[in-house]
Amino acid sequence: MKRTVFILSDRTGVTAETLGHSLLTQFESVDFEQRTIPFVDTVERAHAAVVQIEQATANNGARPIVFSTLVDREVRAVVKSVDAQFFDFFETFIGPLEKVFQRSSSHMVGRTHGLADLRGYMTRMDAINYTLNHDDGLNSQGYEHADMVLIGVSRSGKTPTCLYMAMSFGIRAANYPLTEEDLSDLRLPPELEACRDRLHGLSIDPRRLHNIREERRPQSRYASLAQCRYEVSRAESLFRRERISCLNTSFSSIEEIATAILHKSGLKRRLF
Amino acid sequence: MKRTVFILSDRTGVTAETLGHSLLTQFESVDFEQRTIPFVDTVERAHAAVVQIEQATANNGARPIVFSTLVDREVRAVVKSVDAQFFDFFETFIGPLEKVFQRSSSHMVGRTHGLADLRGYMTRMDAINYTLNHDDGLNSQGYEHADMVLIGVSRSGKTPTCLYMAMSFGIRAANYPLTEEDLSDLRLPPELEACRDRLHGLSIDPRRLHNIREERRPQSRYASLAQCRYEVSRAESLFRRERISCLNTSFSSIEEIATAILHKSGLKRRLF
Repeated sequence: MKRTVFILSDRTGVTAETLGHSLLTQFESVDFEQRTIPFVDTVERAHAAVVQIEQATANNGARPIVFSTLVDREVRAVVKSVDAQFFDFFETFIGPLEKVFQRSSSHMVGRTHGLADLRGYMTRMDAINYTLNHDDGLNSQGYEHADMVLIGVSRSGKTPTCLYMAMSFGIRAANYPLTEEDLSDLRLPPELEACRDRLHGLSIDPRRLHNIREERRPQSRYASLAQCRYEVSRAESLFRRERISCLNTSFSSIEEIATAILHKSGLKRRLF
Repeated sequence: MKRTVFILSDRTGVTAETLGHSLLTQFESVDFEQRTIPFVDTVERAHAAVVQIEQATANNGARPIVFSTLVDREVRAVVKSVDAQFFDFFETFIGPLEKVFQRSSSHMVGRTHGLADLRGYMTRMDAINYTLNHDDGLNSQGYEHADMVLIGVSRSGKTPTCLYMAMSFGIRAANYPLTEEDLSDLRLPPELEACRDRLHGLSIDPRRLHNIREERRPQSRYASLAQCRYEVSRAESLFRRERISCLNTSFSSIEEIATAILHKSGLKRRLF
């Protein structure tokens, strides 16, 4: 029996999706179909969502599950009129939080993932642009404005980690790929010397690196296991010698790598 | 009185932060200090977190708030022993969901934002690489593999929106900046003709565009209000003439733009 899971939100659905998805991954044996309905911010749209939910019930005979973050009470009431298992992540916690803070919540729609905090949003866009302009050794003279600089061999995970940090936390994250020369001399280039306090090394299992590079340039010297072993071993020697903290990315997601580096560096995760 | 809000997670903290932040934005008048403690996955680390929470109470006299997503019962029990206002987002919903599904949850740590779904993760990395390699008109011959192609004038929001879609939903999102020639001819270049079904136009308020471009190249023809007005008006004419759906990005965040486009295109939001 297939279960339809609806994610309903008055704005983007990002919050409801994030927690909803986390919860569902704890039930791997259940057969789900997930549907996100964003922008349910009027009574009319709430009624339209109700129609979709009723159709799902008719189609697969199981009572749908609805995860929502609906701030407006009237909209929520319409949605809750349908026969479904309903979990509103806002309603569940807003009441208890109002008691804790001894004041009412604002009940305003769309406070996150929007432009409510315009200055914060501009900081974040600026971080994304900075990160793109300082990706892969580009503009390596401009590291004085970097919150951090990731270094490592080509394809060790620097670029996606930097983009994730910029996008999610507004961190200006540059990255520099260690060159053949850096690796043979075991010495940092001068532009990195100037930002030693913000350097973080990424390393990777040579076999995994070999697989990643093979996808990119099959049968090349660049992708060969021997070359991957040499580069990783030299990079790790350089990190040890220069006392640069180093993280192995082989079995970590970008969220995990970013979290570990930020936690260690003490940089604040700004949220948007 | 300052309130310390702790975000505790056995993995990255992304889920707890997302909902926690959404809830707190409903209480703008409260003075918060937010601290994320990730990787609380052992009893020892739980005790270390408890010490930090107790210190916060001692420092500012207010009972801290703890938002958490702790899957392990033993770890959770240690954290809950501290005197704080405790909201565990997992515990709150896992029990009711177990009843709905009539089965136990897996109680396994780190099912999201990690590598549990390795194939999904590779899809996502592939989407990020694709998006970077097809940013700003790069490799515009390769749009046959794009899930979507955003078009618009320079600085209308294409790049960050594409990166967000790739990073969050594993969408291969290319983008193409309309050239002077495209705008004066009011005609799509051949490489876009071939992927008409996946084209989405972005537009922007000329004044806002002017401000954004001024930050980048002050006092240039490129940034002048007249040039911005001309380009936006021509781009909108082109969208109308070619019947390409168009979204105004002036007052929308990248989450809102992405959500609106995905919702309209019917593309599925994959989650990781």
